Parts: sequence; structure tokens; C-alpha cells
Amino acid sequence: MLKGNAVVGQGGGPTAVINASLCGVIEACREQSQVARCLGMRFGIEGFLEDRLIDMDAEAPETIAGLKTTPGSALGSCRYKLRDTDFPRLLEVLRRHDIRFFFYIGGNDTMDTIHRLEGYCRAQGYEMVGVGVPKTVDNDLFGTDHTPGFGSAARYVAISVKQAGILARDMQRVDQFVIFQTVGRSAGWLAAASALAKTAEEDAPHIILLPERPFDRERFLTDVERAHDRYGWCSVVCGEGITYPDGTPVSAAQVTDRFSNVEFGAMGGTSAAMMLHRMIGNAFGRRGEFQVCESLQMCAADRVSETDREEAYACGRRAVELAVQGITGKMVALRRTSGDPYRWSLDTAELSEVAARAKPMPDEFIHPDGNFVTEAFLQYARPLVGPLPDYIRLTGKPVA
Amino acid sequence: MLKGNAVVGQGGGPTAVINASLCGVIEACREQSQVARCLGMRFGIEGFLEDRLIDMDAEAPETIAGLKTTPGSALGSCRYKLRDTDFPRLLEVLRRHDIRFFFYIGGNDTMDTIHRLEGYCRAQGYEMVGVGVPKTVDNDLFGTDHTPGFGSAARYVAISVKQAGILARDMQRVDQFVIFQTVGRSAGWLAAASALAKTAEEDAPHIILLPERPFDRERFLTDVERAHDRYGWCSVVCGEGITYPDGTPVSAAQVTDRFSNVEFGAMGGTSAAMMLHRMIGNAFGRRGEFQVCESLQMCAADRVSETDREEAYACGRRAVELAVQGITGKMVALRRTSGDPYRWSLDTAELSEVAARAKPMPDEFIHPDGNFVTEAFLQYARPLVGPLPDYIRLTGKPVA
Repeated sequence: MLKGNAVVGQGGGPTAVINASLCGVIEACREQSQVARCLGMRFGIEGFLEDRLIDMDAEAPETIAGLKTTPGSALGSCRYKLRDTDFPRLLEVLRRHDIRFFFYIGGNDTMDTIHRLEGYCRAQGYEMVGVGVPKTVDNDLFGTDHTPGFGSAARYVAISVKQAGILARDMQRVDQFVIFQTVGRSAGWLAAASALAKTAEEDAPHIILLPERPFDRERFLTDVERAHDRYGWCSVVCGEGITYPDGTPVSAAQVTDRFSNVEFGAMGGTSAAMMLHRMIGNAFGRRGEFQVCESLQMCAADRVSETDREEAYACGRRAVELAVQGITGKMVALRRTSGDPYRWSLDTAELSEVAARAKPMPDEFIHPDGNFVTEAFLQYARPLVGPLPDYIRLTGKPVA
Repeated sequence: MLKGNAVVGQGGGPTAVINASLCGVIEACREQSQVARCLGMRFGIEGFLEDRLIDMDAEAPETIAGLKTTPGSALGSCRYKLRDTDFPRLLEVLRRHDIRFFFYIGGNDTMDTIHRLEGYCRAQGYEMVGVGVPKTVDNDLFGTDHTPGFGSAARYVAISVKQAGILARDMQRVDQFVIFQTVGRSAGWLAAASALAKTAEEDAPHIILLPERPFDRERFLTDVERAHDRYGWCSVVCGEGITYPDGTPVSAAQVTDRFSNVEFGAMGGTSAAMMLHRMIGNAFGRRGEFQVCESLQMCAADRVSETDREEAYACGRRAVELAVQGITGKMVALRRTSGDPYRWSLDTAELSEVAARAKPMPDEFIHPDGNFVTEAFLQYARPLVGPLPDYIRLTGKPVA
């Protein structure tokens, strides 16, 4: 039976519940006699290479419990692709601290890191198990029904689009459109989740633009005009990574500032939402606004989906339970055992498969017109996001 | 004793609690025997000119009560400057519906509308009282300690900057700065309120740029570098309306899209935050992001300050109580009767004075260096925003 120390790290962008997974790992380690000490990597694998480890056992139980409701990646994170030359150094740090249990919370790249490190250790005869804990707001991880972090980010998006839609409806005499941009470069899950904001036909959003479908400018302007004709205003939600059919990002633009610096595309800070805003302004001469919240949707601890938090915590715990059984090379995965009522259980996926693939939205979740989602998607997403706040509508009976 | 019908409207941009004021007006009207019926203007004075009135008495009490927690401007709003030629038409609508009590919830322009209409009616011998209910997230109304709506928008800003700051600290190996832009073209109250997010020196925000102070590019870059040296990252909050010493908006830029359309400034959708982002990128080659939430900070019903909601509701009620006493030409105002513990009471201000002036941040609330706020401001703002969520910090004891 494997005994020794454990290490846990957080990789890539955060979610509002990635610290709940961290809490699960640490609390479970404290319960397992095979795990002597639990260490934390400062700034993920990049900090590990620098031997920047912290002592999780020195943290008070209340601090660890408080991770469940704290945003950010409390250990610090990184985006670092391992080079072949890094492995001897990694093994040296593992040996120095007698680390036999390796836990890393993250997305594809993180799973790739565990996969490669775990294989290297085996080849070198160093006994260590490596288990991944899934995480990404983008929901594009293969091998799991959904990823911890998605439900909460989706909740942030749906609440924002719902509230801004009510505002836009009421301000239609001043501004005629509102555009909300979500993160998610190649997968549209978060943009899609905004559809949960809609409870009546006139509600926001009216148009959802997904990276899974090429952007068609004429089609888009026609859709905007139709919404405007019907409702007097228009709500658009777009994924940041939408592209023209030739692959050019919609965000591509040249920006010249007052010092005559010219920059192109993302470096210039332009966004898809800004370009859509300009298209509508140019085509119809209408006023509107665009909203680019960026990482705010990854850290809104006060807008967390409770189901998401619970699942994130459970995934962290399960990773430890698997590891002490000697299971390695796996990522904890979520299975949906029932849709309505929603029920879930824990399973595993192969790290090698998770690392190699991504999961864009399937066709059955995208409306045939490519500008909205289907009922099947709403059924998929609703339990993950949880009930949204309900607001009143005036009857608005005209005075005779 | 004046008897007849009442009308209530909402003008300008909304706040998260403008419907709480509406609720206060309607509920108080229902209690006053002098008020026969309460009517609502669809889309403010613009709808009133079109005789678009709705019957508030046809709404269920639960619907009216639900206004307290519903974002948007439930009656619909407008931005419409009255022309001299509009007054006869307004009087005609007033007479037709026997309106003797005129309530309008809004900012400077709204107060100007009531003031002029109330004067016109008096001159024409039509007996009507007009009372204003203050509202603006910008907090720049003269004659009141603060405006309903500010506390909730400030809360949205402070929560966002706090959460994004934790994320940025933890992601400093990937992105080194984060910029949050608030609304408020000429007054920096909302940008200033982000300072409430800070509980330790390293916390966000590190730099606050206010429209009350000219923007100095070199100074800004020096401040960014200092924060980066100290903390490894930098959080900047800016008001949307910051300008260079010559009055040029920092947001001014030329944007050329792939169709070679060129636009300048706000029409091109550029923002101050985007230009600051580019400055830092150009100067230091660092990565970062900017967040432009626009009207999301005016409608976040789930992030309302309870004090703000309570005050907004009370202001609505008080307008009716004043009107039935025959008081006219006034705006309800908030007085701070005690700072700590915070206590408030209701008072009035002259519509004519409110309409003519604005209230930028006073010098004693702005740090002498012009890049942050003072303790006096924090004491002013804290009770209006309410307690912010508390998050844990790891001790982070290094492993020997």
C-alpha cells in the first residue's frame, strides 16, 4: 500500500468553485492515513518546478473550509506547457518531498501535465499516483457530462443577460440593443447558457452567436432587425471566439490611438462584441452598448450554482479516494444519472483521452438556424445553473 | 385641499432600486384619500406627451410589492429634453386625466422637467403639485447626501473589483494587470467606491482614475509599475469619462474594421479601459484584461445594498406625503444624521437648484496624488454599500 505525502495544485484559468475542489482534496487527505502530509503547489506546475511548496497542514480547518466560498485559485495558478527537459527536475522535487500522491485541478493542459508526469515517474521506477480534478468554465472537457465551474459561470452569464435584458427593454427609447460577450474561445457553452434567462418570448437573449457556427454578417443584421421589429430592442449574446467563415475572428480590427500606435486584433483590445456593436450602429444608425466582463464570470463567488459547488467539492474528495486505492492516470468525471429530477454520480475518464480532445457543443444543442439553442440544451443546462431569480412584470393596462 | 389623480414616471438611466422608489410612490398613493387613482407614464415624459398612461391600480398588490426587488425601470424610461412647444400638450394630458399630483423619479434632467412643468401649470392656473424622487447610480445630484441607486451600483463595482482582484493575484503568472471601467462620465463616485474592496494593502484596487482629475499617462504608467513591483500584478479602476489635461477623452481612438470603416471615439465602441490596457501592453509588454460592464452595474438586483433599497422606497413614499400636503417644486433628499453608526432621515431640496447643478467628488475625498480616495471617502461610502463578502486567505507557510 502506497504511503507518503500528497501535493495539490491548480492550473489554468480559475472558476468560482475551483477552491471548493481544493477544499475537497485537502479535507480528504486529512482523513486518509496513507497520506502523511498535504502540500500545495504555488502557481501550479511552474511553481512546483521552482520547489515553491506550501504546507497545507499549517492552515486552520476554518481556512480550508472557507475555500469553499472563496473565489480565485488560492494556491496561485499558471499556464505552463511542460518541456521534456523539465521532467528530471520534477522528479527531483517529488523525491525530495516524498510525494506519492499528485493532484492537479484544471482543464486539458492540466490533465496532459499529470498524464505525462505520471508516465515519466512510472518509467523511472518512482512510485506515484496522479489523479486529475476537472475544472473549466468553458465546459469543453471530454469525458465528463460537464465540468465543475461551468454551472457557476453560466449562472453569472444568465443572471447578467436577464437583468440587462429587463433594463434594455425598459430603456428602448434611448438604446435599442445590448450585446453581452462571454468567454469561451472555441466552445459556445457559456454563450448558450444565457438562453436560460428567457422565460417569455420577448425576453433576452434574442440572438446567440456560438463559435461552433461561422458568423454571417448579413444573417446577423437580419436577425437584429427582426428582433427590433418585434420587441423594439434586441439582445445579442456572443462567444468571444466567433469567426467569419474564412476563420478571421470577428474581433479582428485595427486600432489607432492618439499616439498613432496601430494594433490589430486582440492585442489592440478589440472584442467581438465591440465589432458587432459597430455593425449594428453602421447598418441601422441605432444606439446600444456592449458588455465585456471577461474573468468576472470566473470568480463571482456570490453567484455560484450550489450544485456546481457541491460537485466541485465532491470531485476533489474523490480524487483522493481513488489515489489511495492506487488508481492513477485518471480524471474524476461527472455522470448524469437522471435528467429530471437531476441526479449525478462520480466516475472517471482516462487522462490521455481528456488531454487529447475538446468537447464543442453538439449539433443537437444548437438551433438549426445557428442563432440560438435548442430545448435539449436548456434541459441539459438548467439543473447545472439552478433556479434564476424571478422578477415581476407589470400588466400595463392602458388608461382609457 | 387638492384632490385628483396622480401620475408617476421614471426618467433617465435606471438603477437597481429605481423600482423600489416606484413601489413607494404607488403604495403611498393607495393610502392617501386625496389621490383618487395612480397612473403610470410609459417611457417617462416622452410617453406622457403621447398620452401613453397605464393604470397602476389595475396591478395586483403583490406585483407592486415585487417592484422592490425587480431591476429595470418597470414603467419604461426616456431621455427627453422638453421643448417650449411641448407644454400646452402636457397640460392637455394633465387636464384630460385630472392629474393633480405629478411624481417623476430621476436625475438632473428629470428634476428640470418637473420644475418647468410645475411652473408652467402654475402660470396657466392649473393646480398641480410636482415632487421629484432622486435617482442616479452616478451619485452626482446636488442637494442630497447621496442618491438612491448609488449604493447598489457601488456594491456591484466593489464586489466585482474585489473578486477580480483575488483572481488577478492568483493568476499573476499569466496576466499581470486587470482594468475595471465604471460608468459615470463626469463624476468619479462609482470608480471611487471600488476602494471598499480593499482590506489589505496588496488587495485590489491599486489605482483609481477619476474624471475629477486630468489623466497623466506617464504618472499612470509609473503607478502601474510600482504596483507590479510590489505585488506582482496591478488592479486599475477607471471612470469611463477620464480625460487628458486638454480635455480629450482617454477613450478617443480610431477603429478600422475589416470593411475599412473608420470611426472615432465612443461611436467606434472604444473605451477608456481599452486604451489603458493598450498603454500598459505597449509600455511593458505585459498581458492583462479590461472589463467593461456598462449597464450591468445599474441593474444587478441580486447585489443590491439593503440600505439603498430601503432609502429608495422611503424616498418614493415621502414624495407622496409631501404632495398631499401641497408641497411642490421640491425633490426628496437624503440627510445623513449620523456617520457611525450610520443614520439617515428625509429632507427636501429645491428642484430649481438640483436641475442646475451637479456634484462631483469633493477634494477631501480624493487622494492628493489623484490616483486613489481618502479615508473620509471610505467612511462616507461604506454604510451606503453595506458589508462586502469576506473571503479566506491562505497563510501559505513555505515547506522547508
